[in-house]
Amino acid sequence: MVEAAREIFATAGVDVTMREIARRAGVGVATLYRRFPTKESLITEVFAEQMAMCAAALDQALADPDPWHGFCAVIEKVCAMQAVDRGFTSAFLAAFPGAVAFGPVLVRNERGFAELTRRAKQSGQLRADFVPDDLRLLIMANGGISAESPEAALAASRRLVTLLLQSLRAHPADPPGPLPPAVPLRLHHLEASRGPGGITA
Amino acid sequence: MVEAAREIFATAGVDVTMREIARRAGVGVATLYRRFPTKESLITEVFAEQMAMCAAALDQALADPDPWHGFCAVIEKVCAMQAVDRGFTSAFLAAFPGAVAFGPVLVRNERGFAELTRRAKQSGQLRADFVPDDLRLLIMANGGISAESPEAALAASRRLVTLLLQSLRAHPADPPGPLPPAVPLRLHHLEASRGPGGITA
Repeated sequence: MVEAAREIFATAGVDVTMREIARRAGVGVATLYRRFPTKESLITEVFAEQMAMCAAALDQALADPDPWHGFCAVIEKVCAMQAVDRGFTSAFLAAFPGAVAFGPVLVRNERGFAELTRRAKQSGQLRADFVPDDLRLLIMANGGISAESPEAALAASRRLVTLLLQSLRAHPADPPGPLPPAVPLRLHHLEASRGPGGITA
Repeated sequence: MVEAAREIFATAGVDVTMREIARRAGVGVATLYRRFPTKESLITEVFAEQMAMCAAALDQALADPDPWHGFCAVIEKVCAMQAVDRGFTSAFLAAFPGAVAFGPVLVRNERGFAELTRRAKQSGQLRADFVPDDLRLLIMANGGISAESPEAALAASRRLVTLLLQSLRAHPADPPGPLPPAVPLRLHHLEASRGPGGITA
């Protein structure tokens, strides 16, 4: 069941119904619900490994003596994971009311990223007008990529992320113009407004 | 019917079925098909104005004595239209086999944009490693934004587009590192792989 869910999530995101997951796994809906009382619990199990990888990437970045290198590495890793697995993106970004399992990890990640940002600005390598909402903007932008294969999506994502990181790097000698103001973005909008699902569901 | 279609396309993209459009417009499916024999013909009518605006933006950019200013203006205008109207994005980007009405406009736009790119590089303002596929990458990235309101989406899009244009601007005194290779992207993948529609449809 977990394998079937992983495959469905990877191609279609986590908006798919429990009924559809059960059908694909070849089990009854009751059987699926017995093992996973909520879709959140299923998502937690499917993406536990990737969430752990995110947390590890952040720990590694915080241990990096070069905060800008750490900052770039963590964004590159998360965006690469996102590029090859659409399900991970939506799971990672969705703000499920019942997703208590990921809650502490997300809060810890958010604090860690804020600290990394502070250090990268202090070292003069990250432009001063970067705000935490810009990470959400980057993740949304990266999530907009779709290509014929995971390999092509990953390659396109690498180019986009490099373009964005080059723009985020401070250029004291030749500073860029000001940015339009940042906007508070909540990531769980990401899947909700996509596709005709919003109308037919 | 056209108004109902415009509203549905704006919120849910153009993947919605003719049956659903008819239901929302309060007419029978047969009535809808009598006026619009294909969904492409309906899309063509709904987005004729926006397609014309795109073509006009490109003409204006090509008439601009500053090719970099023209290049930025056309990207800003298209991305702003995309940010406030999800339906326009998918209509603009979809490669419908039967969308003959938009075909000549798209070819003309593509040629015009290539010329604009050539001039902006020649003037030394656009980085030399920009390729036409990067425009598709930008449009996909911009399409990844979703927010609580069209106003918030537009503001987020403006910040993303400014970041990207600042990165695309040539910096001969302090050149950025090389970019990972560009990937051929076909824009009609944009909606096809989104949401659970691919599974349930």
